[in-house]
Amino acid sequence: MRLSEMYAPTLREIPSDAEVISHQLMLRAGMIRRVAAGIYSYLPLALRAIRKVERIVREEMDRAGAQELLLPAVQPAELWRESGRWEDYGKELLRFRDRHEREFCLGPTHEEVITALVRDEVRSYRQLPMNLYQIQTKFRDEIRPRFGLMRGREFIMKDAYSFDADENGAEQSYARMMDAYSRIFHRCGLEFRAVEADTGTIGGTFSHEFMVLADTGEDVVVSCPKCGYAANLEKAQVSPPAGGDARPAPEAFLPLERIHTPDLRTVEQLTEALNLPATRLVKTMIFLADDHPIAVLARGDHEINEIKVRNELGVHHLELADPQVIERVTGAPMGFSGAVSLKLPVYADRAVESVVNALMGANETDYHVLNANPGRDYQVTRFADLRLARMGDTCPRCPETVQFHRGIEVGHIFKLGTKYSKQMNAVFLDADGKETFMVMGCYGIGVGRTVAAAIEQNHDENGIVWPMPLAPFHVYVLPIHVQDQSVREASEALYRELTLAGVETLLDDRDERPGVKFKDADLMGIPFRVTVGPKNLKMGLFEIRFRKSGEIHVVSVQETAEFIRNQLGRQLSSHP
Amino acid sequence: MRLSEMYAPTLREIPSDAEVISHQLMLRAGMIRRVAAGIYSYLPLALRAIRKVERIVREEMDRAGAQELLLPAVQPAELWRESGRWEDYGKELLRFRDRHEREFCLGPTHEEVITALVRDEVRSYRQLPMNLYQIQTKFRDEIRPRFGLMRGREFIMKDAYSFDADENGAEQSYARMMDAYSRIFHRCGLEFRAVEADTGTIGGTFSHEFMVLADTGEDVVVSCPKCGYAANLEKAQVSPPAGGDARPAPEAFLPLERIHTPDLRTVEQLTEALNLPATRLVKTMIFLADDHPIAVLARGDHEINEIKVRNELGVHHLELADPQVIERVTGAPMGFSGAVSLKLPVYADRAVESVVNALMGANETDYHVLNANPGRDYQVTRFADLRLARMGDTCPRCPETVQFHRGIEVGHIFKLGTKYSKQMNAVFLDADGKETFMVMGCYGIGVGRTVAAAIEQNHDENGIVWPMPLAPFHVYVLPIHVQDQSVREASEALYRELTLAGVETLLDDRDERPGVKFKDADLMGIPFRVTVGPKNLKMGLFEIRFRKSGEIHVVSVQETAEFIRNQLGRQLSSHP
Repeated sequence: MRLSEMYAPTLREIPSDAEVISHQLMLRAGMIRRVAAGIYSYLPLALRAIRKVERIVREEMDRAGAQELLLPAVQPAELWRESGRWEDYGKELLRFRDRHEREFCLGPTHEEVITALVRDEVRSYRQLPMNLYQIQTKFRDEIRPRFGLMRGREFIMKDAYSFDADENGAEQSYARMMDAYSRIFHRCGLEFRAVEADTGTIGGTFSHEFMVLADTGEDVVVSCPKCGYAANLEKAQVSPPAGGDARPAPEAFLPLERIHTPDLRTVEQLTEALNLPATRLVKTMIFLADDHPIAVLARGDHEINEIKVRNELGVHHLELADPQVIERVTGAPMGFSGAVSLKLPVYADRAVESVVNALMGANETDYHVLNANPGRDYQVTRFADLRLARMGDTCPRCPETVQFHRGIEVGHIFKLGTKYSKQMNAVFLDADGKETFMVMGCYGIGVGRTVAAAIEQNHDENGIVWPMPLAPFHVYVLPIHVQDQSVREASEALYRELTLAGVETLLDDRDERPGVKFKDADLMGIPFRVTVGPKNLKMGLFEIRFRKSGEIHVVSVQETAEFIRNQLGRQLSSHP
Repeated sequence: MRLSEMYAPTLREIPSDAEVISHQLMLRAGMIRRVAAGIYSYLPLALRAIRKVERIVREEMDRAGAQELLLPAVQPAELWRESGRWEDYGKELLRFRDRHEREFCLGPTHEEVITALVRDEVRSYRQLPMNLYQIQTKFRDEIRPRFGLMRGREFIMKDAYSFDADENGAEQSYARMMDAYSRIFHRCGLEFRAVEADTGTIGGTFSHEFMVLADTGEDVVVSCPKCGYAANLEKAQVSPPAGGDARPAPEAFLPLERIHTPDLRTVEQLTEALNLPATRLVKTMIFLADDHPIAVLARGDHEINEIKVRNELGVHHLELADPQVIERVTGAPMGFSGAVSLKLPVYADRAVESVVNALMGANETDYHVLNANPGRDYQVTRFADLRLARMGDTCPRCPETVQFHRGIEVGHIFKLGTKYSKQMNAVFLDADGKETFMVMGCYGIGVGRTVAAAIEQNHDENGIVWPMPLAPFHVYVLPIHVQDQSVREASEALYRELTLAGVETLLDDRDERPGVKFKDADLMGIPFRVTVGPKNLKMGLFEIRFRKSGEIHVVSVQETAEFIRNQLGRQLSSHP
């Protein structure tokens, strides 16, 4: 394609509303433009990259035995009432009425529609298993859409839904998707991890996220370099404190003391003022669990993981209590809560069990208690793994120390079990003629987000550095002066030769200064740049530069196309 | 693909809610399922046909120099306020509010979004012309969605928008699209006509519709077999009554008579009771034109064309007056209106000018007047072409008699002029540095509707008869008994051989009775059916049947794949 004929309005300045790299670079490279908050137009360069992801996704989904279909964006309320999510889903579900005042929503996901489709016509175990997928535009009315394609409201997603006759089949479907997803992100040329994850609002029993690793990622991946355990931070298990011999010798319990701690509320303030290590503090947080107040304890140097608390308690909603509630249930303002003589259910992280002679709030303004010990001074309803993993923690599966990486979630697979099939009565007759609920799974990939994540992982100070499989074009032919007839003709000839050979080539045929062209070439991140300049050309040479390594090859005019085809073949075949 | 692994639930019964053939057959062949009124899921067979249309569309749009991008479905109200269509568009524009109470709509078309995109960054005539297109899901909240994909609410459309520096360029862009559309529908294997059409709510100065011809079509195409003139019925010009020598000798004007016509209101009743030819009647219809009452006259055997009336008067809204209004402005109930001493602007079709001694309403209950003559008895504000064309009419461009066909609108192209660029201030600097409005065009194709129209045009009593270029599969391999090992193995071998050769093949590997399989094969309409039966197989033969002609060829097992590839190549190359 000729750049003069392509709509890719590049920008020199960093747009002020773009906070993350991929958002900045996609705007600057003329790939996307904002239409409204979280809603973008995809210009030709972006669409080409998106289509490359889609193609890889289709090939791998088909290979895994899934079938493509296409479900509607506009969905009737009755289906969501059946699943119970019309009320449950929250404001991200954009609800509206049509001209006849019937209620609809814009589909943020398609469990309801697909379950209704399948239950109406699949009657026999012989029709199972089945895995149906689509690549479709979703809408989620995020409260604060931002980061460009990373957290948009309207976005392109591949979503798949599997239906199996039993748990065993469902596990095989899940494993097949796990495998397909690994192939997909590998073929996209991305460094990624599959990690255990929480199931969130989709529900179900088990899930994995696929994380593209990037320093700018919003998510944290905890992984073991030895045994391969990997989870996202909110899901990552913490191995129980070593028991038996490894346990520190029990210290003597000292008498409980009430100490004056005026205005000392935080762990930092207390450790500094009292000269105690944070490991001797126990912090007490008051939560509302499905509207009932509870207390959760963690060691001073640990962070409570609300997802773990919610799952441990089996509650739907968990939120930090506000200052009024804290004052009402503890008798003291925030910062002075403690478990001693507290009239609430108390849940404690396992590490708290071995804190001897702890400091904790006294439930009294400006007072803490020292030498609190579980059993003697305060009662714990249950000890459990309730804290976030952190640097230096041991792997929950082996003795190795875990690693931390930042990542961007690009895929998420769920074992749904019978959550939707029970709610919506999706049954079939098994081999014995018995009515049985289908066992489901669902599997998503953010297509636009994968493109954005690829940029987060692959860029430098000059622009995007596309992984070859997602590059909108493979080659950028850059004639230094289009007014120079020999330069122009040699560029056109190379453009034709490469295009005919199936190499996706962009010809910068604009009558612009060389500086502008070099900057745009770097910004757009096309893997090979061929510079056609008068000096080299007189010697029958082109200059080829690799965007990623910066390597420069000066190659004869005759051999350039062949050289590029070889390089391209080599680089693409490393993502087969 | 194996039919056992494809979700295509076929139906034996004709679904009671499906009125048209394509809707019935798409439901019966397991191609679509209804989610809500006018909202469908596309199952794998339908999606395959849709993708074939999309591919042809993309190739021809790219060849015509257009660039693909993708615009959002959800559009902010402010853009529609700028164009003035937030108020104008009517209830088909589905409007809603997001969680922050900001107003949005679901895009029924994208003139606003694309004009805003282009005006913000195209500044110079050197960036023009530009033609941007997308294949995207639209929503129009039709009051009575019906006929399956023919008149859905959510539907897939290709829409393109051209931007030119001047009128001349815009005409070239329009001509290029005209040509591209002709190639597209030709390559789809459809019989179609490009016809002149009205511009409707999109606006602009000029437009053509592309009509797939089918007896079941809702639209009527008027065309000249000689000079090539073609228009849809509402746009078709009527050639003026022949003047000069060809005019019938003027009859003497007879005196005006008032005659009693109790309960005779319609042309049929009057001609029968009074034994007059319908050509001597003049009917008088009362309309509200932008809320002002007017009268329109047409000869008794002609039908008034409201579109022509609206365009002739240059009004926005035109509707038949209700009985109360008629009574108020004529003094008589409906059925007795006439132009004599009527206090309204009177517009008459040209043919009325030569009706001598006409019968028309007397504006008095149960009375008509006979021998009314224009000029003498009633005054006409303007004579113009205001009637519908009809069988036997002469072509407006040549002396040939026009033909009538029924058709389905699958594409529509518009010269928009500067309607949107003025409204939304889309300007550029021309070669002289002067700010100038861009001249626009817009070009739509209903992708799903093209598939439905293909079925309306190509079916028989047993099911769909796909044109080769849109067939979801080329070959249906039908083993009579999958339990018979040799039959099964021969079928599998053929399936593998064809698939490897790039022939899209569906293997009916279901353990079903032969009757069921034959019925499904016909219903799905796959062009070649290869029957693998034990008797033929013993002689080393397969039976190949062409779905369209019913032709049967018995071919050796070894030669079957080659035979099919030859046939397929021949048939596809007739739509290059």
